[in-house]
Amino acid sequence: MSETRRTEAFSDGVLAIAITLLVLDLRVPVRGALEGSLAEALGHEWPTYAAYVTSFLLIGIIWVNHHAVFELLGAVDRIALFLNLLLLMTVAAIPFATSLFAEYLTAGGAAARTAALVYSGLFLLMSVTFALLYAYVARRPALLAASVDPVAMRASIVRFSVVGLALYSLTMVIAVFSAPATLVAHIVIALYYCFRQTRAVS
Amino acid sequence: MSETRRTEAFSDGVLAIAITLLVLDLRVPVRGALEGSLAEALGHEWPTYAAYVTSFLLIGIIWVNHHAVFELLGAVDRIALFLNLLLLMTVAAIPFATSLFAEYLTAGGAAARTAALVYSGLFLLMSVTFALLYAYVARRPALLAASVDPVAMRASIVRFSVVGLALYSLTMVIAVFSAPATLVAHIVIALYYCFRQTRAVS
Amino acid sequence: MSETRRTEAFSDGVLAIAITLLVLDLRVPVRGALEGSLAEALGHEWPTYAAYVTSFLLIGIIWVNHHAVFELLGAVDRIALFLNLLLLMTVAAIPFATSLFAEYLTAGGAAARTAALVYSGLFLLMSVTFALLYAYVARRPALLAASVDPVAMRASIVRFSVVGLALYSLTMVIAVFSAPATLVAHIVIALYYCFRQTRAVS
Amino acid sequence: MSETRRTEAFSDGVLAIAITLLVLDLRVPVRGALEGSLAEALGHEWPTYAAYVTSFLLIGIIWVNHHAVFELLGAVDRIALFLNLLLLMTVAAIPFATSLFAEYLTAGGAAARTAALVYSGLFLLMSVTFALLYAYVARRPALLAASVDPVAMRASIVRFSVVGLALYSLTMVIAVFSAPATLVAHIVIALYYCFRQTRAVS
Repeated sequence: MSETRRTEAFSDGVLAIAITLLVLDLRVPVRGALEGSLAEALGHEWPTYAAYVTSFLLIGIIWVNHHAVFELLGAVDRIALFLNLLLLMTVAAIPFATSLFAEYLTAGGAAARTAALVYSGLFLLMSVTFALLYAYVARRPALLAASVDPVAMRASIVRFSVVGLALYSLTMVIAVFSAPATLVAHIVIALYYCFRQTRAVS
Repeated sequence: MSETRRTEAFSDGVLAIAITLLVLDLRVPVRGALEGSLAEALGHEWPTYAAYVTSFLLIGIIWVNHHAVFELLGAVDRIALFLNLLLLMTVAAIPFATSLFAEYLTAGGAAARTAALVYSGLFLLMSVTFALLYAYVARRPALLAASVDPVAMRASIVRFSVVGLALYSLTMVIAVFSAPATLVAHIVIALYYCFRQTRAVS
Repeated sequence: MSETRRTEAFSDGVLAIAITLLVLDLRVPVRGALEGSLAEALGHEWPTYAAYVTSFLLIGIIWVNHHAVFELLGAVDRIALFLNLLLLMTVAAIPFATSLFAEYLTAGGAAARTAALVYSGLFLLMSVTFALLYAYVARRPALLAASVDPVAMRASIVRFSVVGLALYSLTMVIAVFSAPATLVAHIVIALYYCFRQTRAVS
Repeated sequence: MSETRRTEAFSDGVLAIAITLLVLDLRVPVRGALEGSLAEALGHEWPTYAAYVTSFLLIGIIWVNHHAVFELLGAVDRIALFLNLLLLMTVAAIPFATSLFAEYLTAGGAAARTAALVYSGLFLLMSVTFALLYAYVARRPALLAASVDPVAMRASIVRFSVVGLALYSLTMVIAVFSAPATLVAHIVIALYYCFRQTRAVS
């Protein structure tokens, strides 16, 4: 197995673990501390479920895009490995940002907006590291697979990077005004990517 | 490795992590807070152990069935990837539903039935997303492996989906009346699948 | 990839996760609640570190032996899959038993012995499911790899199973008398397997 | 798949899980217990974020070096398996040492230095087990891949081992005087390895 495939397998492992660790954000109401019915207590946790679904879809989309990029590569060098590690570092932190966002989504005021800014900011950071990785490898023909056209690859840098950077920057602006609207924006991004951007793959 | 195999490897990772995270539901009695003997405290946790065993077997069976479906595929498209992601999202939440069910199994009254409904509901949701994935790919000959007969595959949709949907719908009905009976029903389903439905594989 | 290799890859995933989740048993003393120095507080946690090392080595040995068995297989059937799932279920519970054992090791009296019995009992259960899996496949030539001699395989059942069953049964007896001695016994078993039993592999 | 590749795949799994479990050290401030703003509470957690980034990079570097070593191997024996297991045992404990270091980094006094010593000590122990593994396989031509020159390999033992051992020993000395300086030293080591030592790989 080449170093490229190994890097991809390691990245897949981190992505699979991060997406599954999201479940740790779903909390069981303590039996002795229930006020009202269990159904009410669970219903009260709706921000947690909404954040779980949103982050799960978004990490799933990162996985699809990560694969799409690594399919184009024939080699990786130390800078690419480091940029990939930075990308994984932001993805691995998503369960934390998700938990924070869910905890403060309904807190109102500055706390809710702070949590929304952290959540949006982490995804923006993720898309920045992803764009850096893409821009780095796309400019180095020696790292591309034999079947990839270096000119087309270089030309695709802006197109590949701009949508994610623009969308997540927009959620930062929304987060300044409203935490719930920020969550809705991320759900819209998730659905947009699921049904518009994902390439047909075989 | 084709995109189909990669999707399967990623799904295997999520399933392996979800099944192993079930252990986090097993709680160690706090040493200073013991009332009576440790053996009594552990015995008092029997719903946790029963739920652990049941969910472990059921996720194991989902893994077997997931493989059986992906063996029939030669390609995946964006809709199939999205449906598979929805399936994984329900499986990854099973440790939460298991913990909730174990916590309230012996609580009696509405709380126990609510927890049983959530547990059954999650498995029903899992079988719905699994049926959607199967129905989607089974109707698209372009996604099937070369050795698979498209006509037989299409004909198998109802047969593949109906057992799971019927069994987990039945547990929803049972959950309205009794939480312990709901657990027994899931154990029966697990044993049924282990010894009846699993194909001989090579 | 054959179903046998996939089962092995899934089992490897569960074993790798279970062995790494042992770290969750290592607890950081709460900063505000320190009595005396941090060094003393950490030193007080020595049973946790001893249990971590012991369980880590023992799961590592299970991984080595699991591979050794699957190398002999050319196919798996539904019973073998089910027995393997039971084996994984016991291994995935080891982080719980480790945490319990560490918590009560120095509690003295019946509680310490109960925790030691649970720890030993889980490893005995593991070796029982492992022996069942081995005995099942060793008696079915259709499941063996082409290069494996069915007669020699059948003859090896007792030899393969008896050491583990005997050693872990012995720790059950020791657990009735002393929890610390039970820990020492498991350390001795780990070192025995590491340096005596593990085959040279290539 | 040879036993060498399997050992590497298992090690990759443990490394991917350990690096992702670092996220569990990032704690969400409890909503009801906030004093001041959420932004202040998060800002107060800066040692946690610094420790997360540092440990993430360092485990990433261990992964790169681990691969570099296993690429040179054509076989593993029981001693190599055992030494690799000891290495994994130290890596799997890094999330614990990271959490401890972050908790006490700003505690000042002996507690901060104790936590820094544990953190540095674990990395030193990691580099000792890594050096032992390397020295063991480098002296055994039978374990090396066909393309590897046994004489050059043996000659590389000191060069491979001495940097890590020296750097982490130095952090032990620093830890005696200052916990924050110890964190800075580890960040410098991470950056040094990322940009100096990592080989170009293909």
